[in-house]
Amino acid sequence: MKTAEKTVKWTRHDLLDLDELSKEEIELILETAKSFKEVSTREVKKVPALRGKTVAMLFFEPSTRTRVSFELAAKRLSADTLNIAASSSSLTKGESILDTAKNIEAMNVDMIIVRHASSGIPKILADALDPSVINAGDGCRAHPTQALLDMFTIEDKLGRLQGVHIGIVGDILHSRVARSNIWGMTKLGAQVTLCGPATLMPQYIERMGVSVTHDLNFVIRNCDVLMALRLQNERQVEKFIPSIREYAKVFGINSQKLKQAKKDILIMHPGPTNRGVEVSAEVADGNNSVILDQVTNGIAVRMAVLYLLLGTKNTRK
Amino acid sequence: MKTAEKTVKWTRHDLLDLDELSKEEIELILETAKSFKEVSTREVKKVPALRGKTVAMLFFEPSTRTRVSFELAAKRLSADTLNIAASSSSLTKGESILDTAKNIEAMNVDMIIVRHASSGIPKILADALDPSVINAGDGCRAHPTQALLDMFTIEDKLGRLQGVHIGIVGDILHSRVARSNIWGMTKLGAQVTLCGPATLMPQYIERMGVSVTHDLNFVIRNCDVLMALRLQNERQVEKFIPSIREYAKVFGINSQKLKQAKKDILIMHPGPTNRGVEVSAEVADGNNSVILDQVTNGIAVRMAVLYLLLGTKNTRK
Amino acid sequence: MKTAEKTVKWTRHDLLDLDELSKEEIELILETAKSFKEVSTREVKKVPALRGKTVAMLFFEPSTRTRVSFELAAKRLSADTLNIAASSSSLTKGESILDTAKNIEAMNVDMIIVRHASSGIPKILADALDPSVINAGDGCRAHPTQALLDMFTIEDKLGRLQGVHIGIVGDILHSRVARSNIWGMTKLGAQVTLCGPATLMPQYIERMGVSVTHDLNFVIRNCDVLMALRLQNERQVEKFIPSIREYAKVFGINSQKLKQAKKDILIMHPGPTNRGVEVSAEVADGNNSVILDQVTNGIAVRMAVLYLLLGTKNTRK
Repeated sequence: MKTAEKTVKWTRHDLLDLDELSKEEIELILETAKSFKEVSTREVKKVPALRGKTVAMLFFEPSTRTRVSFELAAKRLSADTLNIAASSSSLTKGESILDTAKNIEAMNVDMIIVRHASSGIPKILADALDPSVINAGDGCRAHPTQALLDMFTIEDKLGRLQGVHIGIVGDILHSRVARSNIWGMTKLGAQVTLCGPATLMPQYIERMGVSVTHDLNFVIRNCDVLMALRLQNERQVEKFIPSIREYAKVFGINSQKLKQAKKDILIMHPGPTNRGVEVSAEVADGNNSVILDQVTNGIAVRMAVLYLLLGTKNTRK
Repeated sequence: MKTAEKTVKWTRHDLLDLDELSKEEIELILETAKSFKEVSTREVKKVPALRGKTVAMLFFEPSTRTRVSFELAAKRLSADTLNIAASSSSLTKGESILDTAKNIEAMNVDMIIVRHASSGIPKILADALDPSVINAGDGCRAHPTQALLDMFTIEDKLGRLQGVHIGIVGDILHSRVARSNIWGMTKLGAQVTLCGPATLMPQYIERMGVSVTHDLNFVIRNCDVLMALRLQNERQVEKFIPSIREYAKVFGINSQKLKQAKKDILIMHPGPTNRGVEVSAEVADGNNSVILDQVTNGIAVRMAVLYLLLGTKNTRK
Repeated sequence: MKTAEKTVKWTRHDLLDLDELSKEEIELILETAKSFKEVSTREVKKVPALRGKTVAMLFFEPSTRTRVSFELAAKRLSADTLNIAASSSSLTKGESILDTAKNIEAMNVDMIIVRHASSGIPKILADALDPSVINAGDGCRAHPTQALLDMFTIEDKLGRLQGVHIGIVGDILHSRVARSNIWGMTKLGAQVTLCGPATLMPQYIERMGVSVTHDLNFVIRNCDVLMALRLQNERQVEKFIPSIREYAKVFGINSQKLKQAKKDILIMHPGPTNRGVEVSAEVADGNNSVILDQVTNGIAVRMAVLYLLLGTKNTRK
């Protein structure tokens, strides 16, 4: 941590997506997360770094796993947390969201962690508010801490990201996880191949520096890491595919297909998994799966982000 | 704080409304709040005053802003907080509410902060229970901490309440905020004028020591402070007015009307504002608006109330 | 506490039900609870025993009173708490529940307190997970901390359980409270008589070492303790009885019937009471009622269980 801080100084006030971060900044987060991972394995899982800071979680979309991960990260840094679950429906106008956020700001909150079904809301808040803003997922756009924990997990398991071949499989079109990962992984020198139905593949996505294929077997044979994306029924994805069953047959990852893979291939999934759809139960629970490592690492990465944004003194803009 | 405590000793166990407080007691709360306001601007926003105390928030009406404000106030005093959201519908009988509260009391809780759609519930609890009770809003009756933060904001901005001319505009009939403010403000020597549609003005309200008018322009021209009340659709207020649009035209505060006002007039609103109805967006965000100051001061005032009720040793009744 | 620990060493990792505990282990919990009861009466209701531990409450059934009791117990031991309310409906397959729990485990949580409408779920989690598991009520099977607080209350009031005659009245068939109490009370030498409608009395229940009668007056005349069970409408108990009114007439406990009882008989109820059904309001609030003592003792007993499971170092299985 100390070493990394020497080489690059953290100066940012918000975390909206990985496109805005330099390679060195991403490396600093991953480096910092390493030192925090150990905290969660201690008898006393708590450091006083953010004592007396207030972290508000403003979730306009329901989420248990991301909310809980941020909440534990904040608590293990001794911050006070505040859960504010808001329904998008009652706040349809951007102005109203900003009103809500400005009220939270007025309570001298240090950080707002925001999730919203519409892309761009975290940016609007960051531009308007004094507290640090973390994007915990906005629409189909970005989910930077998920990408960071994915990258942390790969580096933790393989020792590097540079030159690693990563296949991302599934609904790329609606996936904020995919988009944030592409920014981060390519920046750190990984080779990314996207794979999914043509209807769920954004046009011109190759311009982000990735390859595209519709042949899952090709990806399985060539990748070091295979990341399956969640098929999000809540985004009415069934309009884009013939059927869930057909999707599972062609793009689902199972033991049979994995026989062609490298022996040490890592299987990843941002969760929650639809077992039998994106990955079979056997694969999700198998030796190559690092799905639960991703969850564990999520806390360390989020502690690192909270610490860098709040624990170091950055003056606003 | 120390000075104020010398002149008047705090002996109360509950805070139900401002009618029961003396001028000196209200001044002691405002004085105490002053010293707590600074805590929320510190790096470490926390004092150990109420460490090991348990504060339960028993909300029978949904509320985000008041609940969050109390929760932060308690946390910044190092108290443990407990959120108990209860639906009024499942607890229609007074006996059942008391049952619920007696169970909370049996858990050795130090304070119960209660909000309920029916007037008088906090009083019933205070009479029956050992823990301190704070009324966080009961029906159309009282909301004392809102009134205290309003008075704190005026005193903070104008240096005094004595002789200040305050106009309260809108649905006086259903407003617990108005009622509590009238008790407090008149007690501290302010001159209060109420303004709103005749259908939303309680009969004989002048007996509380206030003036009544239906002419908003008169109020705007003469007041130092203009407090707009929220038009509460949840109380079916549309039965009392021709239309929201008509109401906004006659009683809404906008820049055009404000041209007649004193240059330094304070614009207040207990929030959440219906922009374009009670106040225009321009006015709500304008230089005269202290709406967000009210939110900030709410934490300081609630910290003061919690501290006085719990931090000083008052034996029960 | 120290003395008790000398005579029997706590080695368990989970608390699923009282059938698996020895007499000595139950006595150790009750002994430990005694020393914790005092903590909740202090000015500063907090000891640092579990600082830095994370306790997750995973409730698949709605519950305010049990959840709040565990939450306060954890907070007074300085643990961090996490509320995860999950709906059973969205998690119908055992696999999905385990998935959810494994994700919580991956966050380095120390303890999972689980409530579920299906019997056996806590056992499934305890078998599969590293964190300690406490059963906070599973289906109609067990609710061990409720039984422990009931036994604590009797011992606290009468000085012993050995030889005490306890009547349990009501819907035995669906009652996890009854089942756990029978295990514990008989183990500690109490004499238990069950009383209720034939349709709500499990067959062969005498094999658990209890007597059965359908004559409430007989029980009232002979018992030292009378525990009424909640008539759980949510379990569609009205199919088993002619009517609520008829049930109340025959099995409801009121002052009239209590005239035949010993003068110092203890009246207990796990709550929430349906006043006028299982017990009359007069009896629930009367001098013989220890219903609110049960609530108070619940915190002490749960603190003891949390402390024994987490505060002492037991390696997993």
